[in-house]
Formats: sequence, C-alpha cells, structure tokens
Amino acid sequence: MHLSLPSTPFSAPSPAAELPCNDVYVVAYDFKSIDSHTAIKEFRTLLEDLEAAGLHAEVRAGYEQTLLVFVKAPRELLGNTVYKLRVKDWLYGVTPSHPGGTKDTIVDGAYEAEDVLSMYHLVHWPKDLGGAGISPGIGKWKNVRAIFPLHNQRVNQSLLRHLSKRVFLTTQDLDSIRDLFGSKVAFYFAFIQTYLAFLTFPAVTGLVAWLWLPKYSLVYAITTCIWCSVFLEYWKIQEVDLSIRWGVKGVNKVKVNRPQFVYERIFVDGSGRTIHYFPKWKQLTRQLLQIPFVAVAMLALGVILAIVFAIEVLISETYAGPYKFYLEYLPTVLLAVALPSISSSLEDVADWLTEFENHRTADSHEMSLAQKVFVLNIITNYLPILLTAFVYVPFGDDIVPWLRASIQKHLGSPAVQKLAYKPFTADHDKLRNEVIALTVTGQIWGFFEENILPYIRHKLQGWYRDFRRARTHDGSMLLTVVRDEPDEADLLARARDEATLDQYNVHEDVAEIVLQFGHLALFSPVWPVLAAGFLLNNWVEVRSDFAKICIEHRRPAPARADGIGPWVGALEFLAWAGSISTAAIVHLFGAEGAAAGSAWWSLAATVFVSEHVLLAVRALVRFALRSAGSEQIRRERDVRYANRRRHLDEMEAHKQAGLALSVAERERRRTVLAAGGEAFWTRQAREGAGVEVGVGLIERVKRAEERGPQHERRER
Amino acid sequence: MHLSLPSTPFSAPSPAAELPCNDVYVVAYDFKSIDSHTAIKEFRTLLEDLEAAGLHAEVRAGYEQTLLVFVKAPRELLGNTVYKLRVKDWLYGVTPSHPGGTKDTIVDGAYEAEDVLSMYHLVHWPKDLGGAGISPGIGKWKNVRAIFPLHNQRVNQSLLRHLSKRVFLTTQDLDSIRDLFGSKVAFYFAFIQTYLAFLTFPAVTGLVAWLWLPKYSLVYAITTCIWCSVFLEYWKIQEVDLSIRWGVKGVNKVKVNRPQFVYERIFVDGSGRTIHYFPKWKQLTRQLLQIPFVAVAMLALGVILAIVFAIEVLISETYAGPYKFYLEYLPTVLLAVALPSISSSLEDVADWLTEFENHRTADSHEMSLAQKVFVLNIITNYLPILLTAFVYVPFGDDIVPWLRASIQKHLGSPAVQKLAYKPFTADHDKLRNEVIALTVTGQIWGFFEENILPYIRHKLQGWYRDFRRARTHDGSMLLTVVRDEPDEADLLARARDEATLDQYNVHEDVAEIVLQFGHLALFSPVWPVLAAGFLLNNWVEVRSDFAKICIEHRRPAPARADGIGPWVGALEFLAWAGSISTAAIVHLFGAEGAAAGSAWWSLAATVFVSEHVLLAVRALVRFALRSAGSEQIRRERDVRYANRRRHLDEMEAHKQAGLALSVAERERRRTVLAAGGEAFWTRQAREGAGVEVGVGLIERVKRAEERGPQHERRER
Repeated sequence: MHLSLPSTPFSAPSPAAELPCNDVYVVAYDFKSIDSHTAIKEFRTLLEDLEAAGLHAEVRAGYEQTLLVFVKAPRELLGNTVYKLRVKDWLYGVTPSHPGGTKDTIVDGAYEAEDVLSMYHLVHWPKDLGGAGISPGIGKWKNVRAIFPLHNQRVNQSLLRHLSKRVFLTTQDLDSIRDLFGSKVAFYFAFIQTYLAFLTFPAVTGLVAWLWLPKYSLVYAITTCIWCSVFLEYWKIQEVDLSIRWGVKGVNKVKVNRPQFVYERIFVDGSGRTIHYFPKWKQLTRQLLQIPFVAVAMLALGVILAIVFAIEVLISETYAGPYKFYLEYLPTVLLAVALPSISSSLEDVADWLTEFENHRTADSHEMSLAQKVFVLNIITNYLPILLTAFVYVPFGDDIVPWLRASIQKHLGSPAVQKLAYKPFTADHDKLRNEVIALTVTGQIWGFFEENILPYIRHKLQGWYRDFRRARTHDGSMLLTVVRDEPDEADLLARARDEATLDQYNVHEDVAEIVLQFGHLALFSPVWPVLAAGFLLNNWVEVRSDFAKICIEHRRPAPARADGIGPWVGALEFLAWAGSISTAAIVHLFGAEGAAAGSAWWSLAATVFVSEHVLLAVRALVRFALRSAGSEQIRRERDVRYANRRRHLDEMEAHKQAGLALSVAERERRRTVLAAGGEAFWTRQAREGAGVEVGVGLIERVKRAEERGPQHERRER
Repeated sequence: MHLSLPSTPFSAPSPAAELPCNDVYVVAYDFKSIDSHTAIKEFRTLLEDLEAAGLHAEVRAGYEQTLLVFVKAPRELLGNTVYKLRVKDWLYGVTPSHPGGTKDTIVDGAYEAEDVLSMYHLVHWPKDLGGAGISPGIGKWKNVRAIFPLHNQRVNQSLLRHLSKRVFLTTQDLDSIRDLFGSKVAFYFAFIQTYLAFLTFPAVTGLVAWLWLPKYSLVYAITTCIWCSVFLEYWKIQEVDLSIRWGVKGVNKVKVNRPQFVYERIFVDGSGRTIHYFPKWKQLTRQLLQIPFVAVAMLALGVILAIVFAIEVLISETYAGPYKFYLEYLPTVLLAVALPSISSSLEDVADWLTEFENHRTADSHEMSLAQKVFVLNIITNYLPILLTAFVYVPFGDDIVPWLRASIQKHLGSPAVQKLAYKPFTADHDKLRNEVIALTVTGQIWGFFEENILPYIRHKLQGWYRDFRRARTHDGSMLLTVVRDEPDEADLLARARDEATLDQYNVHEDVAEIVLQFGHLALFSPVWPVLAAGFLLNNWVEVRSDFAKICIEHRRPAPARADGIGPWVGALEFLAWAGSISTAAIVHLFGAEGAAAGSAWWSLAATVFVSEHVLLAVRALVRFALRSAGSEQIRRERDVRYANRRRHLDEMEAHKQAGLALSVAERERRRTVLAAGGEAFWTRQAREGAGVEVGVGLIERVKRAEERGPQHERRER
C-alpha cells in the first residue's frame, strides 16, 4: 500500500544519475588512535549492528585512517519507518489525523528531509526503537567520528541561487529549506526572516532619529520598545502557524533518551513502561551549581572590566609620557582580544555543567545549555556597556578623582600633582563609542569567524592533508593503499570532504540573532543607526548562513522542532529588560534627564513607569494578535473539527433513527416504568396526556382569573 | 452493551423509594404574564420539543400560575447520551482513552452528576445537538422560569453532616462534591480548601507579628508576599492535578454556542462546519467600551470617596457644635450603606456590557463578565484603602490645612478661626481603622447577605404566598384548584419549593475568596491579625457555602470546568500588585520608612526592588513546584504512554519479524539494486563482504604503520 503526501516545491529531486540523498547515511569510523585488534572488533560490531537494523552497508576508504561506511535502507524498511513516524506523530497529537494505512504500509517521504530523518533514526536510535544505536563519540562508539547524510548539492545550489535573488524569503522558500534540512533549521531561517522584515521599522525610524531627533531621544526609545514587543508577539503566532504548516506542533513530546544519559537503575512501572531512573533531586541539585558558576563568571568579568576601565582612565588622566595614545587604548584592545577566548572557555564550563546535570532528553539538555550560553552571552556582551552606562558615566566624577588621589598619595610625582587640578568629567560619549565599538566589531568579527575563518581553516587542513599524504610512503594512510573505482571517484571525494566538515549547531546562529535583538532592546537610544546596521548585516546573514550550512558543515540530521525553543523566553526577557534599561539610559543621558540633573530618585520612578507601560502594551498587543489569529491555526482547528464531526455524525445518525420510537415500543416502556413501581411516571403515560393536563390547568386558571373573584365564589 | 466506571464514595444512591435524582429534570413554566391562548401554544411547543428529544414528561401544578414539567429520560437515551459525552471528551482530548463500546453503547453514569449533566444537555442543548433546546428566560422560552434537577436530599444531608465533622476536606470529600454538583462547583470547594490550608501560615505568622514585631513589619510583609506566590503556584498545580483526576482537563474546548449569541449570518465552511458568523472586529470594538466604563466608574467612586473624606475631616476639625461624634461618622456610614447598591448597579451595567459584547460561548462570556466584576470589586473594595494609604495619610498634612483655609475664607466664623491654630496631623491609624472596618464589616455583612438574608427572604416569600393563597378564592392560582395525589405530595412540595429558589452562581463565591486574598496580598502589614480572621471566616464559609447550595439554591446544573478559570489570572494580578502595594505601605508607614522621612524618591526604588524580587521568587517557586509535579499528572502521562505503546508495539512486533530476512530475499534485493544500475551498492553485496573489506583495510594500514616507513619502502 502506497501513500504519498503532496510535496512542496524544491523537494526531493527525481532519482538522478548520482547517488540519491534521501536514503543514504554515512558513518565515518576513525581507527587512528586504537590498535588493529580493537579496531577490527569494533568495526565488525558496527557492521553487524547496521545489518541487524535491516540496513545495507558498503565500506570505502576515507582520509588517513578513516573508513566510510555508506548505509542504505531498503525501500520497504525506509518507507515503513517514515510511515510509522507519521503514526507516532498522530499518537502524540502532533498531527490531527491518522495517516491511514496499516502497519505494513510503505510511504514515500513527502519531502527529502522526511526520508533523511527516518534514515537518521534507523542509524542512530537505540535498538529497542528499531535503530542501529550508533551514537558517534559516545561510549562504545567513541571512534565513530560522525554519522551524516550527504549534501544534496544540486538542490543546495539551486536553492542558494534562488535565495540570493530574493529580497525577502517567502513561506515557500522556508518550505524548501524545511524540505532539505528539516524544520529545526527552517525555523531559524523563518525567525531571522521575520526579524529582518521587522527590522526595517527601527532602521528607518532610527535614521530619522539620528538625523532630526535629539540624542538619546525618548520618542525613539518608546517606539523601539513597543516594536520589540510587537515583533515578539508576532513571532510567537508565526511560530505556531509554521509549526502547524509543517505538522510539527508539539513534536518535542516525541522524546527519546539521550545516549549520554546515565541512569541509576531500570525498572518497569505499572503501565509497562521501562523507566530509566535518575533521581530528580540529584538533577535539581546539580542544576543549582549554575548559580555559583554564573555569579563567579559575572564577578570575574566585572572585575576584569573594572580594572581595564581604571587603567584606561588613569593613563589618559595621569600619564603624560610617550605613546600616550596607544597606551591609553591598549587595555581595551587586550580585552577585546581576550574576550572571545574567555567566553569560549566559559562555554566549555557550561557544556560540562550541562552534561553533569544529566538530562534525560536531548530537548531538555539543549534547553539547559541554551540558557547557560544565553546568560554567558549577556554577561560578556552587555556587561561592558551596562558598566559604562550605569557606573562609569554617572559615578565617574566621584570615582576618578578618588583614584587619582590615591595614586598621588602613592607616587607623589610632580607631573601627577599638576594634573590633579584639571577637573575630571566623565566622557558622556564613551557610552556611544562603547556601543559602536562592541556591536560593529562584534558583527564584523562574527561574520569573519562564522563564514570566512572556517572556510580558510578547512582549505588549509585539506591542503595540509594532501601535502602529508604526498609525503607518506609507508602505507599508514588508507588512500595511499587504495584506489577508487573510476565511477565512484567523484562521489567518494565529496563524501570524504564532507566527513571532515564541522557539525552544524543551529542554536549558535539563533543565539547570535537573539543577542543582536538584545542590543537593540537594551541600548537602542544610544546610537539609533544601530538598527540600520543590523538590517544590512542580517540581509547578508540569511544568505551566508544558508551557504555556510551547504559549504562549511556536514549536512545536519533534519531534526524537527516546533519553534526556536528556549530562545523565545530569552527574547521575552530581553524585551522586558529593555524597557528598564532604555528608560534608564534616556533618563540619565537624554535632554529630559539632564534637566533633572542629579535627581537619582526620579530614575527609579521613570524605570518603574516605563516597565509597567511596556507590560500593559505587551498585554494589549498579545490580546490583539491572538484575536486576529493566523490562517494555519484556523485551518488546523477546521481539520480537528472535521475529524470529530465525522465521528459524532456517525453516532448521531443512529440516535436520530432510534428516537422515532414505534408506538409499541413506547407502550412497552410505559409498562416497564409502571412495573418498576414508579407510579409517578405513568400518570400521564398515554400519548398527549401531559399536554392535555397542562392545557386544562392553564385554561381553568386563566378563565377563573378573567371572571374575577366574585364569579368564582358564586360558582361555588 | 453495558460499561460502568468505578464510582467514588458518596456517589449516586441506590434507587430509593423516593424519586431518583439522576435522570429527572424539572421545567418550571410560568404563564402568569401572558394570556391563555399564548400560554397554551407555548406549553404545547414545550412538551412537543421535550418529546422530540426523546424525553418523557409529566405535568404537575406549581405555585401560583406555574406548571412544573417533570422530565425523565428513558434509560437507553440517558445511558447513550452519557456514553456519547465520554466519546466526545476523548475526541477533544479531554480523556486519554476511548471509552470502548460502539455507538449503541449504554452506560451508567460513574457518579450522579454525570447522569444529571447529560439530562441537562438533553433538556437544554439545541436540537441539532440532540437536546430539546429549552433555554429558560431567553427568546421563545422567556416564560420558562427555570430548568433544574432535583436536590438529592439524602446525599446532601449525609455529606453536610460529614463535612461539618471534618477539620479539612480531603480529596475524597471533594470527589463527593464533584459527584453531586459537578466539577465546576467542586473546584470552588477545592480552591477554598487549599486556600484555607494555606491560610494557617499567615494566620500564625500574623499573630506573631501582631504580638512581637513592630507595626508595619517588613519581615511579615515579605513572608506574606512570598506566601501569596507559593499558594498561587501550588494551586495551579493542584488545579491541573484535580482536573486530571476528574477527567475534565481541557473540557472547556467542548463548546456549545450560547443561546443568547446573535449571529449576522450562517454559512458552511470548507470542513463542513456550520459557522454562526459575527464579525470579530465588532466584538473587539464592543469590548473596548469597558475601558471608558471602568474609567468612569473609578473616577465617580473616587470623587465620592474624596468628598466623604473631606466632609469627615472638616467636621472633625472645624465643627464644634452638638452631636459632633455622630455627625463626624455620618458620611462614612452613608457611604457604607450606599456602596452595596452602587456596586450592584455597576454590576448590572457590566452584565449588560458583557451581553452586548455578544460572546459565542458561555465560557468566554463568563470570562469577560468575571473580568469586569473583578475590576469593579477591586475599585469598590480597595479604592478607599488605597486612597487612605497613598493620598490621605501622606498628603493629608498639605490638603487639610488648605481645605481649612479655604473654608475660613468663606465662613470666617470666630470658632473656626480659633481652631485653625491647632496644627493638623494626618491620623496614621486611620489606615488601620479603615482596613479593619472594611474587612471585618465586609466579611460579616457578606456572611449575612449570602446565608441569612436569602433564607429569611425565602421564608417570608413562602409565608406570604401561603397567606395570599389562603385568601384567594377565585381559582386563579393552580394550587387552589388542584389537589396532589397523596403519594406525590411530599415530592411535589419539595419540587415547588426548589422551583422558587435562586440559581447558584459559583463565580460569586470564588470572587469573594479572590477579593479576600487581595486584601491579604495588598494590605497584610497594616493589620497582621487579618489572616487569622480570614481563616476563621473561611472555615465557616466552606460549610455554610455547601449548606447554602443545598438549602437556598436550586440544584445547579453540574457544569464541568477544569479549574476556577479566569480567577487564576486575577489572583496572579493581585499577588503582583501586592508586591508593589505592600512594599509601598511598609516604606511609608513602617519604622524603616518613617526614618527615611519625606524621601519620596526612595519609595519608587523600594517598590521597584520589591516587585522584581517577588517576580524572581515566583519564577523559582514555579520551577520547583513544576519539577516536583503531581501524582495525577504523572498518572495521566502513564495512561497516555500506555495507549501509544500498545499502538506502537503492534506495529513494531511486525517489523521485527520482517527484519529477519531470508537469504533468498536478501539475494533478490541485491539483484534489484544491481538491475537498477546502482553499481555502488552491489560491490559488497555478498554476505559479510563489507566486513571483509573493512577488516582488510584496517589490517593493512595498521601493519604498515607498525613496520614504519622504511619497511614499506623496501616492500615496494
């Protein structure tokens, strides 16, 4: 039995002369670090496990000491796996209707990613779920370096060409990305696309504010804060809409244990479910570790920043020797250079902490990690600006003279003494410069680090590998002892190349955009041109990110998700924090604030009002957008309704027929009632008796009423 | 086919000699205001409609010109209606498992309310849903005064006796209430019960604070605010837990159009659903009307309160004539007397507004009305206290002398002139007195109005009716012309009595508790004994409310709900507002605040900090409680899991069998692959070829590596 769903444009290509991509997976087995005996044993197990899952394997040589196992699922197995995933989706309430068919049904994936996902499950899922249980890098598979599907280069290229011609992506384009890389990746593109479209507003108003409005404009701050909320609420609706469109709403309910999950014991509970038990309290306690971690990270970074600021100020204020200009900026430059490595080592700690928390599902692991990374990102990216805005500028006038005085006391040099008479005023433009420096260099460096650097590194690695191979004559590299069949050479070259690429992590890309949104939400009035810059950057980013996945990364397993997950919470937090930070900045730096002078008390009032106005606006926007709803939400409701209707109609039809009881049947029922001793219910049992009694009573009372009391009395 | 679910204690009684309550409904038809002809026509339609729905009707005389129609559903009809509701619940995802059976299945209700609910549907639901469409007071049924089930007096009394013996209600007690009155009412009792249990904490700490802590204690304020959040989050979990226990989670999805809903046109959409269309924008526009309404109400009440305060102050300050004591309190007394009627007329407007908003479902109508009533309650109950706390006391020192001065100017009497030299200081105890007066009298008056007054009124009405009947001799009252059958007399007396009772509205009771919670959340530090008072009051309230339903109200239709609905939002708002209000009160009135003196600026900071600390605490509490989860939530998850497991196991069993392919089958597949031109996949097609190739390669490379470059070179 064959079922097939309508496909979207750009989906699975027709079976081409080259290897089709939808039913092939590659396992890269690296035996460099182990001895021949272990390698052979492991490899044998690998092939046996694949075979046991019903998969067909072809072994080819990879680079250096890597074997590439090409895995293919037979048509029946793959088709049935796809079908069963659909049934599972229905069971979990992800899709409203049963896909039809029986347990033997074989279907074609509606799009390429659906097939590839099932391939991934067949290779990766544990054996009791029907997979081969290959989890690269973990436990007994620690020498399996990667499992990945092959890039569909033809579709990649045509889609890349298509996207580069478009100003904005359409929903169809997003469908195409979903068809190729799965909904999790597609949601990232949907998110950046929505954000990009919304960015045009603050970009335009920002330019207007920059040209004509006063610095730190209140009006611009307010419009941007409201814009943040509107964008956020719109995206939340959009997320639901797309998740219904792609049939993945609530797909995170379909959970599988992470292979890294360590359980204390296994037991089978009342419902027959096998529980891998790990005490909840242990996990909670471990999660508490992140509080000291974040506190220490924040403190350490704060201290480093404070020292850098202090040195900077001191040099500019007290040093009069040669190279003053360079020396003054040296600490900041050192900081800028150190920050990426600081934050990457912090992220390593976060990684380790999350692993230690021992989450059962990939979902909650990801969520926990994303939260930590988000907090770290906030600290490293926003803390310098926040310190400048709320400590350096307002308190600089107090702190710097004190610093100077204490230095004078210790050094007491005449040059310093002389300078002491120049009154210090905190540089109000420092905030603006700080924001410009951090965001502009951040974006540029980010682009370089994300797109250019990996490409260069990959090319260099390839070149170095070729170089080494050319000089290796001992046969310790596979490609020096094996020659490809000519008809396979191209394919194998591609596969070897892809095997050396990095894994793609969509969360990193989302985090980047969320962080950017935070800059806008928190510091927009400092430099209104910011939004226009982001607009430009993101317009490029959409395309370069797609290209990045195609060129610099292994094709990701087309995981499914019903949105950008925990990042929505992060966005909400930023929009809310923005209402506080923006108000505070405008109050302290703006024309209105400057007038208030040293009135620090009014700051709290300003912030309080601003925050609550924003909360009210957000509630209103949410109410309005929810009321408006979305096309897909309505459509889904219709489908669910139709399903229920069908069920109910069947039952109702019967009941209507049953109601028209025969006279004999009515009589029989009355007899039953009477026999049951229920005299009450048999008094008006005759057909129409109830009406007669009622009508009689009404007439009698009404007649009496009309004739009045005299008449009645006479009648007696 | 008979199915029956396990029943909980105190559920449906065994069929007794008296009329069983589970399959009987009473329709009270009042033809007093219309003429005989119309009455007969309407009554005929009424009986015909009941008959058409498959119901059996017995007509009896009621009080004055009211006919009581006793409606009974045949066993098959009722059993099938109950069964179909269960199927519907399953279709809407309310219960996880299909109840089994076919469309002809007849079941006994698992508890009395389940049967009664189906009776209600049979009488009330529109004809296309299988009911008789009787909606009392609306449209063509405007002379149907009420439809109601009969009280099950035996169970009522035994449950009342049981409850009066208990200190706290157990879950089984709540089950019993659910079995009798349905989950909507039971949720009210669950709510007040949970609240009562939680109240012990602030009651004890409040007494401690009153005895040993300073006035307006910060510590007590903080513990109470945190307590509010803990209670709220716990209740939210409890709500989900109970809704699963009672199988009503998400039951509000099972919606039916309100009979009052006015639609502009009907059309059938793509999915075959009949849509009663009323434009969304019209409804939204109409909803906007509540903004001016609330604004006007608040302003008007504020002005009235301000006038009352002003008169009060002026009299106490400037009047020296006779009866001063009484005159001083006259305005407040007048206000207290006027407030109930003011608020009830405001509620009438709210009623009308909600009706005008034209909600499609009873659910959204109720929600909208509850919101309005809540806002009105807030205004009438909290505004006097808020004005006292944040206007009268802090600004009294400025306002009163000004008031006095302007009066002096206009009157210029020597007595007044003399008084002017007495400096005015706003009475700090006024806030405490205000809170005591409003809450204590509020609780006492509320109890009287809710429990005593209706009882007295009902008794008086009964007495007056008997008195009139005794003096009526014209036959214009039914009971003067009809004599009951002796065996029915008791039953009919009961039914007639119940027909004259009021309808029960559970929202009023919930609103009362929510308002009380608000007093605690907003003003706890003013008078810490408050909580102890509330504890006492509520301990009585639980029992008296149950008695009230049994004695003073018609038995409510056992509507289902999965919680206390919109009131959770109200509680959240109050807990949040409490963090602001409490902080402000402690700051202004407390010892710490007094020290800060006139530092109004620090108020904003205090409030800001307090609010955000509470938000953080709430997030933490929520996280902890959600992680802990609840028994029922786990159990439901298990049931849903078992359902899916069954489905999947069936499919999986087959697949495992299919995997063990025969050698012949494998051979056939390879032939297919080869024939398809896929040479790649046939190279290692022979059994075990892949392993051989891989092992060969590993051995060769590793051997070469061991021997080192020299050896290899020599071999060449």
